[in-house]
Amino acid sequence: MKRAVVLLSGGLDSATTLAICRRDGFQTYALSFDYGQRHKLELDAAKRVAAALGAYEHRIAKIDLRVFGGSALTDEIAVPKTRDAKGAYHIPITYVPARNTIFLSYALAWSEVLGAADIFIGANAIDYSGYPDCRPEFIEAFQKLARVATRAGVEGTRFHVQAPLIALSKGEIIRKGMELNVDFSLTHSCYDPTADGFACGECDSCRLRREGFRSVRLVDPIRCLSR
Amino acid sequence: MKRAVVLLSGGLDSATTLAICRRDGFQTYALSFDYGQRHKLELDAAKRVAAALGAYEHRIAKIDLRVFGGSALTDEIAVPKTRDAKGAYHIPITYVPARNTIFLSYALAWSEVLGAADIFIGANAIDYSGYPDCRPEFIEAFQKLARVATRAGVEGTRFHVQAPLIALSKGEIIRKGMELNVDFSLTHSCYDPTADGFACGECDSCRLRREGFRSVRLVDPIRCLSR
Repeated sequence: MKRAVVLLSGGLDSATTLAICRRDGFQTYALSFDYGQRHKLELDAAKRVAAALGAYEHRIAKIDLRVFGGSALTDEIAVPKTRDAKGAYHIPITYVPARNTIFLSYALAWSEVLGAADIFIGANAIDYSGYPDCRPEFIEAFQKLARVATRAGVEGTRFHVQAPLIALSKGEIIRKGMELNVDFSLTHSCYDPTADGFACGECDSCRLRREGFRSVRLVDPIRCLSR
Repeated sequence: MKRAVVLLSGGLDSATTLAICRRDGFQTYALSFDYGQRHKLELDAAKRVAAALGAYEHRIAKIDLRVFGGSALTDEIAVPKTRDAKGAYHIPITYVPARNTIFLSYALAWSEVLGAADIFIGANAIDYSGYPDCRPEFIEAFQKLARVATRAGVEGTRFHVQAPLIALSKGEIIRKGMELNVDFSLTHSCYDPTADGFACGECDSCRLRREGFRSVRLVDPIRCLSR
Protein backbone atom coordinates (compact mmCIF):
# COMPACT_ATOMS: atom_id res chain seq x y z
CA MET A 1 0.00 0.00 0.00
CA LYS A 2 1.39 3.40 -0.98
CA ARG A 3 1.96 5.79 1.86
CA ALA A 4 1.24 9.50 1.96
CA VAL A 5 1.75 12.24 4.51
CA VAL A 6 -1.22 14.58 4.98
CA LEU A 7 -1.01 17.94 6.70
CA LEU A 8 -3.93 18.06 9.11
CA SER A 9 -4.92 21.26 10.86
CA GLY A 10 -8.32 20.01 11.96
CA GLY A 11 -10.16 22.47 9.73
CA LEU A 12 -12.62 21.46 7.04
CA ASP A 13 -10.15 21.78 4.19
CA SER A 14 -7.56 19.46 5.68
CA ALA A 15 -10.24 17.00 6.81
CA THR A 16 -11.55 16.80 3.24
CA THR A 17 -7.99 16.43 1.97
CA LEU A 18 -7.41 13.50 4.30
CA ALA A 19 -10.62 11.87 3.02
CA ILE A 20 -9.45 12.34 -0.58
CA CYS A 21 -6.08 10.80 0.24
CA ARG A 22 -7.81 7.76 1.76
CA ARG A 23 -10.17 7.49 -1.23
CA ASP A 24 -7.12 7.50 -3.51
CA GLY A 25 -5.91 4.36 -1.77
CA PHE A 26 -3.07 5.70 0.34
CA GLN A 27 -2.07 4.58 3.78
CA THR A 28 -2.28 8.01 5.39
CA TYR A 29 0.13 9.52 7.90
CA ALA A 30 -1.48 12.65 9.30
CA LEU A 31 0.76 15.41 10.59
CA SER A 32 -0.28 18.30 12.82
CA PHE A 33 1.73 20.98 14.54
CA ASP A 34 1.71 22.37 18.01
CA TYR A 35 3.21 25.72 17.08
CA GLY A 36 2.20 28.00 19.88
CA GLN A 37 -1.18 28.77 18.37
CA ARG A 38 -3.29 30.55 20.91
CA HIS A 39 -5.71 27.72 21.46
CA LYS A 40 -5.49 23.95 21.47
CA LEU A 41 -8.97 23.36 20.07
CA GLU A 42 -7.37 23.04 16.67
CA LEU A 43 -5.24 20.11 17.81
CA ASP A 44 -8.19 18.43 19.50
CA ALA A 45 -10.09 18.72 16.22
CA ALA A 46 -7.13 17.27 14.32
CA LYS A 47 -7.09 14.25 16.66
CA ARG A 48 -10.82 13.65 16.23
CA VAL A 49 -10.61 14.00 12.45
CA ALA A 50 -7.60 11.68 12.14
CA ALA A 51 -9.40 9.01 14.15
CA ALA A 52 -12.75 9.41 12.40
CA LEU A 53 -11.29 9.29 8.91
CA GLY A 54 -9.02 6.35 9.56
CA ALA A 55 -5.57 7.88 9.40
CA TYR A 56 -3.06 5.07 9.83
CA GLU A 57 -0.98 7.23 12.13
CA HIS A 58 -1.22 10.77 13.48
CA ARG A 59 1.72 12.69 14.84
CA ILE A 60 1.91 16.13 16.33
CA ALA A 61 5.23 17.89 15.93
CA LYS A 62 5.94 20.55 18.52
CA ILE A 63 7.59 23.50 16.85
CA ASP A 64 8.26 27.01 17.96
CA LEU A 65 6.96 29.65 15.58
CA ARG A 66 6.68 32.24 18.34
CA VAL A 67 10.46 32.58 18.47
CA PHE A 68 10.25 35.11 15.62
CA GLY A 69 6.81 36.61 16.16
CA GLY A 70 5.07 38.47 13.37
CA SER A 71 1.51 37.12 13.29
CA ALA A 72 -1.83 37.52 15.01
CA LEU A 73 -2.09 33.75 15.24
CA THR A 74 1.05 33.34 17.34
CA ASP A 75 1.57 36.76 18.93
CA GLU A 76 -0.59 38.58 21.43
CA ILE A 77 -2.27 40.57 18.67
CA ALA A 78 -6.04 40.71 18.35
CA VAL A 79 -7.43 38.64 15.50
CA PRO A 80 -9.06 41.09 13.06
CA LYS A 81 -12.83 40.84 12.74
CA THR A 82 -13.40 42.76 9.59
CA ARG A 83 -12.11 42.29 6.12
CA ASP A 84 -9.98 44.96 4.57
CA ALA A 85 -11.13 46.71 1.38
CA LYS A 86 -8.14 45.49 -0.60
CA GLY A 87 -9.97 42.29 -1.64
CA ALA A 88 -8.91 38.71 -2.19
CA TYR A 89 -5.18 39.25 -2.62
CA HIS A 90 -4.67 41.31 0.47
CA ILE A 91 -2.65 39.33 3.01
CA PRO A 92 -4.16 39.66 6.48
CA ILE A 93 -2.42 39.94 9.82
CA THR A 94 -3.29 36.30 10.54
CA TYR A 95 -0.61 35.36 7.99
CA VAL A 96 2.15 33.41 9.75
CA PRO A 97 5.51 33.98 8.00
CA ALA A 98 6.59 30.95 5.98
CA ARG A 99 4.16 28.68 7.82
CA ASN A 100 3.30 26.33 4.98
CA THR A 101 6.96 26.21 3.96
CA ILE A 102 7.83 25.03 7.45
CA PHE A 103 4.91 22.59 7.59
CA LEU A 104 5.76 21.07 4.21
CA SER A 105 9.41 20.79 5.23
CA TYR A 106 8.41 18.62 8.15
CA ALA A 107 6.06 16.62 5.95
CA LEU A 108 8.95 16.08 3.56
CA ALA A 109 11.19 14.83 6.38
CA TRP A 110 8.57 12.35 7.52
CA SER A 111 7.84 11.24 3.94
CA GLU A 112 11.46 10.46 3.44
CA VAL A 113 11.64 8.40 6.62
CA LEU A 114 8.44 6.54 5.60
CA GLY A 115 9.45 6.00 1.99
CA ALA A 116 6.40 7.99 0.87
CA ALA A 117 6.42 10.04 -2.33
CA ASP A 118 3.14 11.87 -1.84
CA ILE A 119 2.40 14.79 0.43
CA PHE A 120 -1.13 16.15 0.66
CA ILE A 121 -1.97 19.69 1.71
CA GLY A 122 -5.41 21.30 1.88
CA ALA A 123 -4.25 24.60 0.41
CA ASN A 124 -6.88 26.49 -1.50
CA ALA A 125 -6.47 29.54 -3.70
CA ILE A 126 -10.12 30.41 -4.33
CA ASP A 127 -12.07 31.05 -1.11
CA TYR A 128 -9.01 31.73 0.98
CA SER A 129 -7.41 34.44 3.01
CA GLY A 130 -4.87 35.55 0.42
CA TYR A 131 -1.92 33.78 2.00
CA PRO A 132 0.93 33.52 -0.55
CA ASP A 133 1.76 29.99 0.54
CA CYS A 134 -1.63 28.68 -0.57
CA ARG A 135 -1.11 29.40 -4.27
CA PRO A 136 -0.35 26.89 -7.03
CA GLU A 137 3.04 28.50 -7.75
CA PHE A 138 4.05 27.88 -4.15
CA ILE A 139 2.99 24.21 -4.27
CA GLU A 140 4.90 23.72 -7.51
CA ALA A 141 8.04 25.42 -6.17
CA PHE A 142 7.97 23.21 -3.09
CA GLN A 143 7.59 20.09 -5.17
CA LYS A 144 10.66 21.05 -7.20
CA LEU A 145 12.57 21.72 -4.00
CA ALA A 146 11.55 18.34 -2.51
CA ARG A 147 13.07 16.50 -5.43
CA VAL A 148 16.52 18.07 -5.01
CA ALA A 149 16.49 18.46 -1.22
CA THR A 150 16.39 14.83 -0.15
CA ARG A 151 18.25 11.59 -0.39
CA ALA A 152 15.05 9.97 -1.64
CA GLY A 153 14.76 12.60 -4.39
CA VAL A 154 18.38 12.13 -5.45
CA GLU A 155 17.84 8.37 -5.48
CA GLY A 156 14.85 8.69 -7.81
CA THR A 157 11.70 9.30 -5.75
CA ARG A 158 9.52 11.76 -7.61
CA PHE A 159 7.82 13.63 -4.80
CA HIS A 160 4.34 14.89 -5.51
CA VAL A 161 2.87 17.66 -3.45
CA GLN A 162 -0.84 17.15 -3.93
CA ALA A 163 -3.19 20.03 -3.27
CA PRO A 164 -6.52 18.58 -4.44
CA LEU A 165 -8.56 21.55 -3.20
CA ILE A 166 -6.43 24.24 -4.77
CA ALA A 167 -8.93 25.22 -7.44
CA LEU A 168 -12.19 24.45 -5.62
CA SER A 169 -14.57 26.97 -4.09
CA LYS A 170 -15.39 26.54 -0.41
CA GLY A 171 -18.82 25.23 -1.40
CA GLU A 172 -17.25 22.63 -3.68
CA ILE A 173 -14.91 21.55 -0.90
CA ILE A 174 -17.85 21.08 1.43
CA ARG A 175 -19.73 19.04 -1.18
CA LYS A 176 -16.64 16.92 -1.81
CA GLY A 177 -16.25 16.32 1.91
CA MET A 178 -19.91 15.34 2.24
CA GLU A 179 -19.53 12.84 -0.62
CA LEU A 180 -16.62 11.29 1.24
CA ASN A 181 -18.50 11.17 4.55
CA VAL A 182 -16.45 13.76 6.35
CA ASP A 183 -18.19 14.70 9.59
CA PHE A 184 -17.71 18.46 9.63
CA SER A 185 -18.97 18.68 13.19
CA LEU A 186 -15.55 17.33 14.21
CA THR A 187 -13.65 20.11 12.47
CA HIS A 188 -12.54 23.46 13.78
CA SER A 189 -11.82 26.54 11.66
CA CYS A 190 -12.20 29.61 13.88
CA TYR A 191 -9.17 31.79 14.64
CA ASP A 192 -10.71 33.14 17.82
CA PRO A 193 -13.03 30.62 19.51
CA THR A 194 -14.60 31.02 22.95
CA ALA A 195 -13.19 29.09 25.90
CA ASP A 196 -15.99 26.52 25.60
CA GLY A 197 -15.30 25.88 21.94
CA PHE A 198 -17.82 28.05 20.08
CA ALA A 199 -16.60 29.54 16.80
CA CYS A 200 -16.65 33.36 16.89
CA GLY A 201 -18.52 33.63 13.61
CA GLU A 202 -16.72 36.84 12.73
CA CYS A 203 -13.10 36.12 11.84
CA ASP A 204 -11.99 35.59 8.27
CA SER A 205 -11.96 31.83 8.66
CA CYS A 206 -15.52 31.73 10.10
CA ARG A 207 -16.73 34.04 7.37
CA LEU A 208 -15.30 31.87 4.56
CA ARG A 209 -16.75 28.76 6.17
CA ARG A 210 -20.22 30.28 6.61
CA GLU A 211 -20.32 31.55 3.03
CA GLY A 212 -19.23 28.11 1.83
CA PHE A 213 -22.05 26.32 3.62
CA ARG A 214 -24.55 28.94 2.46
CA SER A 215 -23.46 28.60 -1.14
CA VAL A 216 -24.38 24.91 -1.14
CA ARG A 217 -27.47 25.44 1.06
CA LEU A 218 -26.21 23.30 3.89
CA VAL A 219 -26.09 23.94 7.61
CA ASP A 220 -22.72 23.97 9.29
CA PRO A 221 -22.94 21.49 12.19
CA ILE A 222 -20.38 23.25 14.42
CA ARG A 223 -21.30 25.42 17.38
CA CYS A 224 -20.95 29.08 16.48
CA LEU A 225 -21.79 32.38 18.21
CA SER A 226 -23.50 33.71 15.10
CA ARG A 227 -24.91 32.31 11.86
CA MET B 1 21.99 48.84 7.57
CA LYS B 2 20.82 45.81 5.62
CA ARG B 3 19.87 42.81 7.70
CA ALA B 4 20.64 39.17 7.01
CA VAL B 5 19.80 35.91 8.74
CA VAL B 6 22.72 33.48 9.06
CA LEU B 7 22.31 29.81 9.87
CA LEU B 8 24.84 29.07 12.58
CA SER B 9 25.62 25.52 13.66
CA GLY B 10 28.80 26.41 15.50
CA GLY B 11 31.01 24.52 13.04
CA LEU B 12 33.80 26.09 11.06
CA ASP B 13 31.77 26.50 7.88
CA SER B 14 28.95 28.46 9.48
CA ALA B 15 31.41 30.52 11.55
CA THR B 16 33.23 31.53 8.36
CA THR B 17 29.88 32.27 6.71
CA LEU B 18 28.93 34.58 9.56
CA ALA B 19 32.25 36.38 9.19
CA ILE B 20 31.64 36.82 5.44
CA CYS B 21 28.17 38.18 6.12
CA ARG B 22 29.60 40.73 8.56
CA ARG B 23 32.35 41.67 6.09
CA ASP B 24 29.69 42.27 3.46
CA GLY B 25 28.18 44.93 5.71
CA PHE B 26 25.08 43.17 7.00
CA GLN B 27 23.56 43.46 10.41
CA THR B 28 23.58 39.75 11.18
CA TYR B 29 20.86 37.72 12.87
CA ALA B 30 22.30 34.33 13.71
CA LEU B 31 19.94 31.37 13.95
CA SER B 32 20.69 28.02 15.55
CA PHE B 33 18.48 25.03 16.27
CA ASP B 34 18.03 22.85 19.28
CA TYR B 35 16.75 19.85 17.36
CA GLY B 36 17.37 16.96 19.66
CA GLN B 37 20.95 16.52 18.52
CA ARG B 38 22.67 14.16 20.85
CA HIS B 39 24.94 16.73 22.41
CA LYS B 40 24.64 20.39 23.28
CA LEU B 41 28.29 21.20 22.58
CA GLU B 42 27.22 22.36 19.17
CA LEU B 43 24.88 24.98 20.63
CA ASP B 44 27.54 26.15 23.09
CA ALA B 45 29.90 26.61 20.15
CA ALA B 46 27.23 28.54 18.24
CA LYS B 47 26.79 30.91 21.19
CA ARG B 48 30.55 31.52 21.47
CA VAL B 49 30.90 32.08 17.73
CA ALA B 50 27.93 34.46 17.55
CA ALA B 51 29.36 36.55 20.38
CA ALA B 52 32.95 36.51 19.10
CA LEU B 53 32.00 37.48 15.56
CA GLY B 54 29.61 40.24 16.56
CA ALA B 55 26.25 38.85 15.53
CA TYR B 56 23.67 41.54 16.25
CA GLU B 57 21.29 38.93 17.64
CA HIS B 58 21.40 35.15 18.12
CA ARG B 59 18.32 33.03 18.54
CA ILE B 60 17.97 29.33 19.12
CA ALA B 61 14.77 27.76 17.83
CA LYS B 62 13.75 24.58 19.59
CA ILE B 63 12.40 22.14 17.03
CA ASP B 64 11.63 18.49 17.17
CA LEU B 65 13.33 16.46 14.45
CA ARG B 66 13.24 13.30 16.54
CA VAL B 67 9.48 13.02 16.02
CA PHE B 68 10.16 11.24 12.72
CA GLY B 69 13.50 9.57 13.40
CA GLY B 70 15.66 8.42 10.53
CA SER B 71 19.16 9.70 11.30
CA ALA B 72 22.22 8.81 13.35
CA LEU B 73 22.39 12.43 14.49
CA THR B 74 18.98 12.39 16.14
CA ASP B 75 18.29 8.71 16.79
CA GLU B 76 20.08 6.30 19.08
CA ILE B 77 22.18 4.96 16.21
CA ALA B 78 25.97 4.82 16.41
CA VAL B 79 27.72 7.47 14.34
CA PRO B 80 29.72 5.62 11.65
CA LYS B 81 33.48 5.86 11.93
CA THR B 82 34.52 4.75 8.52
CA ARG B 83 33.75 6.07 5.10
CA ASP B 84 31.87 3.87 2.68
CA ALA B 85 33.56 2.83 -0.58
CA LYS B 86 30.92 4.57 -2.71
CA GLY B 87 32.85 7.85 -2.64
CA ALA B 88 31.87 11.49 -2.44
CA TYR B 89 28.23 11.21 -3.48
CA HIS B 90 27.26 8.49 -1.11
CA ILE B 91 24.85 9.86 1.47
CA PRO B 92 25.84 8.70 4.96
CA ILE B 93 23.63 7.66 7.84
CA THR B 94 24.32 11.00 9.51
CA TYR B 95 22.02 12.58 6.92
CA VAL B 96 19.00 14.11 8.65
CA PRO B 97 15.94 14.03 6.36
CA ALA B 98 15.11 17.48 4.98
CA ARG B 99 17.19 19.20 7.64
CA ASN B 100 18.43 22.15 5.60
CA THR B 101 14.96 22.58 4.11
CA ILE B 102 13.56 22.90 7.62
CA PHE B 103 16.39 25.19 8.76
CA LEU B 104 16.02 27.49 5.75
CA SER B 105 12.25 27.58 6.27
CA TYR B 106 12.77 28.97 9.73
CA ALA B 107 15.38 31.40 8.44
CA LEU B 108 12.86 32.54 5.85
CA ALA B 109 10.22 33.12 8.52
CA TRP B 110 12.61 35.20 10.59
CA SER B 111 13.84 37.12 7.53
CA GLU B 112 10.31 38.06 6.70
CA VAL B 113 9.63 39.33 10.22
CA LEU B 114 12.91 41.32 10.15
CA GLY B 115 12.44 42.72 6.66
CA ALA B 116 15.66 41.00 5.58
CA ALA B 117 16.15 39.77 2.00
CA ASP B 118 19.37 37.81 2.53
CA ILE B 119 19.80 34.41 4.12
CA PHE B 120 23.28 32.98 4.54
CA ILE B 121 24.03 29.27 4.81
CA GLY B 122 27.43 27.60 5.11
CA ALA B 123 26.55 24.78 2.73
CA ASN B 124 29.46 23.35 0.83
CA ALA B 125 29.43 20.92 -2.07
CA ILE B 126 33.15 20.15 -2.34
CA ASP B 127 34.61 18.72 0.88
CA TYR B 128 31.28 17.62 2.27
CA SER B 129 29.46 14.53 3.35
CA GLY B 130 27.34 14.12 0.23
CA TYR B 131 24.17 15.53 1.73
CA PRO B 132 21.72 16.44 -1.06
CA ASP B 133 20.68 19.63 0.70
CA CYS B 134 24.17 21.10 0.46
CA ARG B 135 24.22 21.28 -3.35
CA PRO B 136 23.82 24.40 -5.53
CA GLU B 137 20.60 23.06 -7.08
CA PHE B 138 19.07 22.83 -3.63
CA ILE B 139 20.07 26.39 -2.73
CA GLU B 140 18.65 27.67 -5.99
CA ALA B 141 15.37 25.77 -5.58
CA PHE B 142 14.95 27.17 -2.08
CA GLN B 143 15.59 30.70 -3.29
CA LYS B 144 12.87 30.31 -5.90
CA LEU B 145 10.51 28.93 -3.28
CA ALA B 146 11.24 31.83 -0.90
CA ARG B 147 10.14 34.36 -3.48
CA VAL B 148 6.70 32.79 -3.96
CA ALA B 149 6.17 31.50 -0.41
CA THR B 150 6.05 34.76 1.49
CA ARG B 151 4.18 38.01 1.77
CA ALA B 152 7.51 39.81 1.42
CA GLY B 153 8.25 37.91 -1.79
CA VAL B 154 4.81 38.68 -3.23
CA GLU B 155 5.29 42.33 -2.31
CA GLY B 156 8.59 42.51 -4.18
CA THR B 157 11.42 41.39 -1.87
CA ARG B 158 13.91 39.40 -3.92
CA PHE B 159 15.19 36.88 -1.42
CA HIS B 160 18.76 35.78 -1.90
CA VAL B 161 19.96 32.56 -0.35
CA GLN B 162 23.68 33.10 -0.15
CA ALA B 163 25.97 30.10 0.13
CA PRO B 164 29.40 31.74 -0.17
CA LEU B 165 31.29 28.52 0.62
CA ILE B 166 29.44 26.31 -1.83
CA ALA B 167 32.35 25.95 -4.28
CA LEU B 168 35.30 26.20 -1.87
CA SER B 169 37.46 23.35 -0.65
CA LYS B 170 37.72 22.87 3.11
CA GLY B 171 41.24 24.31 2.96
CA GLU B 172 39.99 27.42 1.16
CA ILE B 173 37.24 27.84 3.74
CA ILE B 174 39.80 27.68 6.53
CA ARG B 175 42.00 30.26 4.80
CA LYS B 176 39.01 32.52 4.23
CA GLY B 177 38.06 32.22 7.90
CA MET B 178 41.63 33.04 8.98
CA GLU B 179 41.64 36.16 6.78
CA LEU B 180 38.44 37.27 8.51
CA ASN B 181 39.83 36.55 11.99
CA VAL B 182 37.57 33.64 12.80
CA ASP B 183 38.84 31.94 15.94
CA PHE B 184 38.43 28.29 15.01
CA SER B 185 39.15 27.20 18.57
CA LEU B 186 35.60 28.34 19.35
CA THR B 187 34.00 26.09 16.74
CA HIS B 188 32.77 22.54 17.04
CA SER B 189 32.41 20.07 14.16
CA CYS B 190 32.52 16.55 15.61
CA TYR B 191 29.44 14.31 15.38
CA ASP B 192 30.52 12.20 18.34
CA PRO B 193 32.51 14.20 20.90
CA THR B 194 33.56 12.96 24.33
CA ALA B 195 31.70 14.17 27.42
CA ASP B 196 34.46 16.68 28.15
CA GLY B 197 34.33 18.17 24.69
CA PHE B 198 37.13 16.48 22.77
CA ALA B 199 36.43 15.82 19.08
CA CYS B 200 36.53 12.10 18.27
CA GLY B 201 38.86 12.59 15.31
CA GLU B 202 37.28 9.72 13.43
CA CYS B 203 33.83 10.69 12.22
CA ASP B 204 33.24 12.10 8.75
CA SER B 205 33.08 15.65 10.03
CA CYS B 206 36.39 15.33 11.96
CA ARG B 207 38.03 13.71 8.97
CA LEU B 208 37.00 16.51 6.58
CA ARG B 209 38.14 19.11 9.07
CA ARG B 210 41.53 17.47 9.64
CA GLU B 211 42.19 17.10 5.92
CA GLY B 212 41.22 20.74 5.43
CA PHE B 213 43.71 22.00 7.99
CA ARG B 214 46.41 19.70 6.62
CA SER B 215 45.84 20.90 3.08
CA VAL B 216 46.70 24.48 4.08
CA ARG B 217 49.43 23.39 6.53
CA LEU B 218 47.74 24.82 9.58
CA VAL B 219 47.10 23.31 12.98
CA ASP B 220 43.52 22.93 14.11
CA PRO B 221 43.25 24.64 17.51
CA ILE B 222 40.43 22.44 18.85
CA ARG B 223 40.93 19.61 21.31
CA CYS B 224 40.77 16.28 19.51
CA LEU B 225 41.40 12.65 20.52
CA SER B 226 43.59 12.07 17.47
CA ARG B 227 45.43 14.18 14.92
